[in-house]
Amino acid sequence: MNSSSARGTRIAHIGIAVDALAGVLPFYRDILGMPEVPLDDSDGASIVGLAAGDSLVELLHSNEPGSPIEKFLRKRGPGIHHICFGVDDLDGTLARCRDAGLRLIDQEPRMGAEGKRIAFLHPASTGGVLVELTEN
Amino acid sequence: MNSSSARGTRIAHIGIAVDALAGVLPFYRDILGMPEVPLDDSDGASIVGLAAGDSLVELLHSNEPGSPIEKFLRKRGPGIHHICFGVDDLDGTLARCRDAGLRLIDQEPRMGAEGKRIAFLHPASTGGVLVELTEN
Repeated sequence: MNSSSARGTRIAHIGIAVDALAGVLPFYRDILGMPEVPLDDSDGASIVGLAAGDSLVELLHSNEPGSPIEKFLRKRGPGIHHICFGVDDLDGTLARCRDAGLRLIDQEPRMGAEGKRIAFLHPASTGGVLVELTEN
Repeated sequence: MNSSSARGTRIAHIGIAVDALAGVLPFYRDILGMPEVPLDDSDGASIVGLAAGDSLVELLHSNEPGSPIEKFLRKRGPGIHHICFGVDDLDGTLARCRDAGLRLIDQEPRMGAEGKRIAFLHPASTGGVLVELTEN
């Protein structure tokens, strides 16, 4: 754990799968007044970040046929795709998940879009919620 | 707008519908280390709050046959039920939603479980996301 970033567990972002960005962006940006934050593409999706206090809303829009977001949209339709929690100690948290028998998608942390290490947990172990963990 | 609470739009809480609290609570409380926050029942559901920085995760568990959460679980299974955004000016935000032609579930703010005025927007107008607005 990097003590300079000990913030406790927080909501880093909520990922929302959108099929038509132009239909959704004005709600968050103009009506709710959330400032746009530039983010890199990731996993075949372009991402529009919108600041909400200490968290982000990320609008995920597929830009590659067969991407995870395209598959999600086909199966479930638009809506919330995942929650990302920022944690102070990613390795320790992942070890606790493993010890508790949770199903991990990423057995070890990998590099995420924002240059931070991340790991996904399977919804079957977290009450139907796709959970991403990232380092604070 | 109450100027003492001008914080900008933030994620007030994420509501997660759970069918078995005992299967999900340990993940958030013990593995992610989120402190429990006592909350009153609401809309036929008991609610376990878990602090995540400036936000809460709310685990929603039906305690009344036919409650909205029970219906949601039957239709969709466990998972994320809604996002609640805290806004500085609820009346103004709701007016902007109305002016933009968004479909409102609550035409006017009503009193929510935490003693704050709230209003729900229909997912059809917000990219498939059930959005609750509350006053900061």
